[in-house]
Amino acid sequence: YELIQEDDGHMPVLVSMSQIAGRMSATIAGQLLMNSGGGQGILLNGLPGVSPAAVVILGAGTLGANAARSFCGAGAQVTVIDVDLRRLQYLDELFNSCINTMLLNEHNLKRAVAFADVLVGAVHLPGRRAPVLVSRDMVRRMKRGAIIIDFSIDSGGCVETSRPTTLRDQTFVREGVIHHCVPNMTAMVARTASYALSNAALPYLLAVGEHRLPGALQLQPALGPGVAVFEGKLANPNIAAALGRPVEFDFSGEVAV
Amino acid sequence: YELIQEDDGHMPVLVSMSQIAGRMSATIAGQLLMNSGGGQGILLNGLPGVSPAAVVILGAGTLGANAARSFCGAGAQVTVIDVDLRRLQYLDELFNSCINTMLLNEHNLKRAVAFADVLVGAVHLPGRRAPVLVSRDMVRRMKRGAIIIDFSIDSGGCVETSRPTTLRDQTFVREGVIHHCVPNMTAMVARTASYALSNAALPYLLAVGEHRLPGALQLQPALGPGVAVFEGKLANPNIAAALGRPVEFDFSGEVAV
Amino acid sequence: YELIQEDDGHMPVLVSMSQIAGRMSATIAGQLLMNSGGGQGILLNGLPGVSPAAVVILGAGTLGANAARSFCGAGAQVTVIDVDLRRLQYLDELFNSCINTMLLNEHNLKRAVAFADVLVGAVHLPGRRAPVLVSRDMVRRMKRGAIIIDFSIDSGGCVETSRPTTLRDQTFVREGVIHHCVPNMTAMVARTASYALSNAALPYLLAVGEHRLPGALQLQPALGPGVAVFEGKLANPNIAAALGRPVEFDFSGEVAV
Amino acid sequence: YELIQEDDGHMPVLVSMSQIAGRMSATIAGQLLMNSGGGQGILLNGLPGVSPAAVVILGAGTLGANAARSFCGAGAQVTVIDVDLRRLQYLDELFNSCINTMLLNEHNLKRAVAFADVLVGAVHLPGRRAPVLVSRDMVRRMKRGAIIIDFSIDSGGCVETSRPTTLRDQTFVREGVIHHCVPNMTAMVARTASYALSNAALPYLLAVGEHRLPGALQLQPALGPGVAVFEGKLANPNIAAALGRPVEFDFSGEVAV
Amino acid sequence: YELIQEDDGHMPVLVSMSQIAGRMSATIAGQLLMNSGGGQGILLNGLPGVSPAAVVILGAGTLGANAARSFCGAGAQVTVIDVDLRRLQYLDELFNSCINTMLLNEHNLKRAVAFADVLVGAVHLPGRRAPVLVSRDMVRRMKRGAIIIDFSIDSGGCVETSRPTTLRDQTFVREGVIHHCVPNMTAMVARTASYALSNAALPYLLAVGEHRLPGALQLQPALGPGVAVFEGKLANPNIAAALGRPVEFDFSGEVAV
Amino acid sequence: YELIQEDDGHMPVLVSMSQIAGRMSATIAGQLLMNSGGGQGILLNGLPGVSPAAVVILGAGTLGANAARSFCGAGAQVTVIDVDLRRLQYLDELFNSCINTMLLNEHNLKRAVAFADVLVGAVHLPGRRAPVLVSRDMVRRMKRGAIIIDFSIDSGGCVETSRPTTLRDQTFVREGVIHHCVPNMTAMVARTASYALSNAALPYLLAVGEHRLPGALQLQPALGPGVAVFEGKLANPNIAAALGRPVEFDFSGEVAV
Repeated sequence: YELIQEDDGHMPVLVSMSQIAGRMSATIAGQLLMNSGGGQGILLNGLPGVSPAAVVILGAGTLGANAARSFCGAGAQVTVIDVDLRRLQYLDELFNSCINTMLLNEHNLKRAVAFADVLVGAVHLPGRRAPVLVSRDMVRRMKRGAIIIDFSIDSGGCVETSRPTTLRDQTFVREGVIHHCVPNMTAMVARTASYALSNAALPYLLAVGEHRLPGALQLQPALGPGVAVFEGKLANPNIAAALGRPVEFDFSGEVAV
Repeated sequence: YELIQEDDGHMPVLVSMSQIAGRMSATIAGQLLMNSGGGQGILLNGLPGVSPAAVVILGAGTLGANAARSFCGAGAQVTVIDVDLRRLQYLDELFNSCINTMLLNEHNLKRAVAFADVLVGAVHLPGRRAPVLVSRDMVRRMKRGAIIIDFSIDSGGCVETSRPTTLRDQTFVREGVIHHCVPNMTAMVARTASYALSNAALPYLLAVGEHRLPGALQLQPALGPGVAVFEGKLANPNIAAALGRPVEFDFSGEVAV
Repeated sequence: YELIQEDDGHMPVLVSMSQIAGRMSATIAGQLLMNSGGGQGILLNGLPGVSPAAVVILGAGTLGANAARSFCGAGAQVTVIDVDLRRLQYLDELFNSCINTMLLNEHNLKRAVAFADVLVGAVHLPGRRAPVLVSRDMVRRMKRGAIIIDFSIDSGGCVETSRPTTLRDQTFVREGVIHHCVPNMTAMVARTASYALSNAALPYLLAVGEHRLPGALQLQPALGPGVAVFEGKLANPNIAAALGRPVEFDFSGEVAV
Repeated sequence: YELIQEDDGHMPVLVSMSQIAGRMSATIAGQLLMNSGGGQGILLNGLPGVSPAAVVILGAGTLGANAARSFCGAGAQVTVIDVDLRRLQYLDELFNSCINTMLLNEHNLKRAVAFADVLVGAVHLPGRRAPVLVSRDMVRRMKRGAIIIDFSIDSGGCVETSRPTTLRDQTFVREGVIHHCVPNMTAMVARTASYALSNAALPYLLAVGEHRLPGALQLQPALGPGVAVFEGKLANPNIAAALGRPVEFDFSGEVAV
Repeated sequence: YELIQEDDGHMPVLVSMSQIAGRMSATIAGQLLMNSGGGQGILLNGLPGVSPAAVVILGAGTLGANAARSFCGAGAQVTVIDVDLRRLQYLDELFNSCINTMLLNEHNLKRAVAFADVLVGAVHLPGRRAPVLVSRDMVRRMKRGAIIIDFSIDSGGCVETSRPTTLRDQTFVREGVIHHCVPNMTAMVARTASYALSNAALPYLLAVGEHRLPGALQLQPALGPGVAVFEGKLANPNIAAALGRPVEFDFSGEVAV
Repeated sequence: YELIQEDDGHMPVLVSMSQIAGRMSATIAGQLLMNSGGGQGILLNGLPGVSPAAVVILGAGTLGANAARSFCGAGAQVTVIDVDLRRLQYLDELFNSCINTMLLNEHNLKRAVAFADVLVGAVHLPGRRAPVLVSRDMVRRMKRGAIIIDFSIDSGGCVETSRPTTLRDQTFVREGVIHHCVPNMTAMVARTASYALSNAALPYLLAVGEHRLPGALQLQPALGPGVAVFEGKLANPNIAAALGRPVEFDFSGEVAV
């Protein structure tokens, strides 16, 4: 599902899942910051006379923007870092002075990681491994009991010390920092995710239901990238490349092999 | 500490603790609504195309108002119920159209409890047991997997089915509804709470440190109600009344018995 | 005028007229909800302790978005329904948590229509009849004294029970529901509409004035679709198709027939 | 009902009725500004490229503040005039830069009335006739087709040219200006008003029901001023003064004459 | 004028002057931060990718709150410090998450002063010298080129290194920090200040005009504290105390001495 | 630098410089309006009971939008004028009712200039002289002591009476109006500007550093328009045209001459 993609690059299912993950992030972080979550026992929101938690979000895409919105709503102090200045300008316009934005470079990154109570990894390069932006050394210089939530774990993680955890055992501590690296986090809100999935995918599913593949692809070409295997043949070029195998079925030019 | 009270009835420490509890509530609720929290697997915040959770807050005092703010920030659909129309008017002015307000009566209460995904008990009558507003029957008519967070458990609970739980074992299910009734919840954010406590209590503590009781009471009369026992004598009339014993030491008129 | 269209599909005059109609909608609805308007005698805005009216808007285009803004400003409880998830995501970003969004499907539609105090028809398919989304049966299940404002009446109406009314006699009651289906509603704010029209059309009119047709079309190609008849010949393909006649004058490729 | 008053001067029923009237005002004004309402055919809200209507509100009490909120929500350009600078400071804090405030003096009043598209009379002196702030001469200098909504008509009107109209025949034109002077406007939203009334008055009614007068007055002394005649004797000092008769029954000091 | 005071302690003229001074502060600071103002050449507002200036405001009274509002509007990062927790709670409610609040103690003060790009002294104890909160040592640890705007200079200054400057020569540099300590800053917006003054003082002036002192004092007792010398006799107890002389004319108990 | 341009016309460095200039504008204007700045002695922000300054911004591009944001934040009354209705619609959506928008025509322009306390010239046609929108006659009809800040002076000025001033001597008075026409204003916040410049230009500089021209142009084609002279040859067509000389080096089609 997540690979369905429209002509202009819009990936409807992936966008919905990223919205969900982003909006979960303040809850996850707030819970981990509590003593019972293993954290420093601080309140995400802050209080008159007590500063809120400092949140640093790596990535200003759909996931990062939704995370920013959710942390802003909680009253946290939010910094968003990305390599794309135009995207930062858009977030600045949208959130006005509720967030602080920084261009991604080594100096900014080191500084921001060091003051973060919560570090959110929201880097996503479609179809590729996430870049490892935060080194073990940077993690070592974080505050004791700080939190890393690495949503990029789905594509390998953007923090050197990240490794996948499970829904049952969600966190581990390394270098004094609590890591939360659960792949496919949207499963934690399964009902909301299934509504969102059907909302996003329905137009495409209807096309498949009525016309069956590959006919449906002519009505909804966005389906093409979402078909990984068709009649036992590899149909997705990125996956094929990753496996070192040829594309065996090509939807893009009608119905060829 | 919580009994320190100024002439106009303001209780600085209690207010700070209520602010913290209120602001924790969206994190607690968001976590409980997740599958891993035992809930229905829904996202508190909602999504384009998917409705947010419906939150009903009983009580529009400091705790209720801070809970409202925290749920509003998360994008939930918030209803606040109280018996005090002027307080509701104040919240309406403050939050504008972000919340819905209802006067407490049986009809409104039944209707609101029935549609709640999250019910927050934020009723507090200083020095008295909380009234039991939500009967077992109302709980029975709630949605399966709905959440009750009863902050009033500190003074007995405002839901008939509430009973105290512990930090270790925070919830139980009764009538198909998840109950979260942890007394003294601010302990979960111990560091923030200790800052807040010292912020709120410091002026009084300084007075005690410099002048010792009962001299300090002349400088900071608000301390009076906060002194339960002085030199082995009962000094707080409410506590004395509850124990059926006379007040043995009276600060209010200078230093008499 | 309304057919003037730029290369990217933007129709400047139509957009302005839709903005006006959308922004009128809270006034129209507020007036119809009053006893003197034939309605249930409820206040659109709500009050501390009294819920605001529930408004459901069908369509998230320019008209729907401006209606949403006008109802949000009044403090009503607003739900917007559309088939286009990306458009809903945009409104969600713009209005944040002031509105609720729903994807258009039969289940959502039935549910929303049933709880609406005000139902706004804001569906528009350029050059085509509006789809009839709300059946007579759905109308029958609406609240007694609810309001339908069907702006889509200009292109046939999106409610089965709609039929055009007049400025003099604006409403009728069917199935216990008040219908307001006045075509060309912007005539009710004639002065504002004429300013808006000249703002939107002026660049094109200036081009016509200086260069006369068809020369003006080379400067302002957006005019093309707005010329229905030129020198007695049918020049607009949609209108020609509707009449079952050939296009007799074609502006799109220079100045041919 | 409207005379029920608490010790600190708060009049719960009057406040609720003023909130309703204030929040109706944008709907009333928007409707009157339309051609079908007799107005200039302008849109209250304004539009990109077209200015919104200029609204001037006389009085910054409950009614005026709620009117300001309702017109701000509609996007109108709002000016509030009052003699009480502290109250203006409060509105300025609450609405921030959405409204403009002016101290009431002849110079400001003349200037504001002259540029108003909509003039709202929201002056109320409890128990006394409203002062006539706007002279016939000022009305004569208003724009042709401007609107006056004089809510003060209930206590005599604050505009020289006002005279009471009826729900059936709501407006008249004098000096080229449309006057809307319907007493007891909350009757137009009867259902909302009855909820609001019962919300505001219930605590007092319950006291009367259980204890009967004058016993109830001991529980709810706020009732006192609301009792005009008791056992055939005049009990309200203001009304007595207005009639030039003595108070025949005095609740304030127990139950004397 | 500034000493006019109502029964509840409200000082109308002083409040207006403090509002003006507070609202000027972002302009003053923005100008001083520019290279031409002698500052570090940074933009108060910040930019996508560039952090805004850090502003620390000492004092949460009228001046401090209005300064906070003006810096928030500019998009600066604002921290307000005060000894009064309830006042901080009020600002937190009003400005929501736009400002950070800190209780005044040595630890917080040192930390805040050290990270400030702009430090605003807004401490005012009516009729007494301002306390010196910021020592020379703290100033020494500020950033090079940081700005101090000490509005408290009118009552002696709240920074050890402050000394009065003039409108002509507004700043000096000490310990590498730019000091702006112009007494009576509202003179820089003389026209606005004179309107504000007449707005605030008019009711009292009218009373003096009509009844002359001391008769006016019976109508407007708030005038009392504002009369320093009457018929050549010292009438203000605070001023008398400061001069070590007896009060020669006492308005408070009618018209005695 | 300022000529670097991406395929879709986005000019990253120019955008950043325009953001800075726009956000400086409220500080500049606030300072000039003070008596010490030569102005009328009015407070930009306004006050309860005193109107804020009226600001008119010519141009709704990046500079104009950022100026609008900065003046809105200060609480001024802002009007934005542009010839592009769609851009005005976008600003209206973004700023909601905080600004007023007007389409540029002679009638609107004359009216707006006449009521402006501050007139901001923010007109920019990339690579061309700014149009002179405001005639000397319009300036003559402005208020005494009004302010003109002409950011368009960099490309010739959009006011007939503008002529370049210097950082040292920033203003002159003509027709009773204070003119501020400093070219390259971002130099006044040199540190912020240099961060912004490196943020915006870095990706392109890195490409040049690693690959040297013209190789870098293949990685970052946006650089092309930013290269004015390469190996002694004219490479920028606009500059060449302005000089009446041929382009001697053409990057756009690979690496030709």
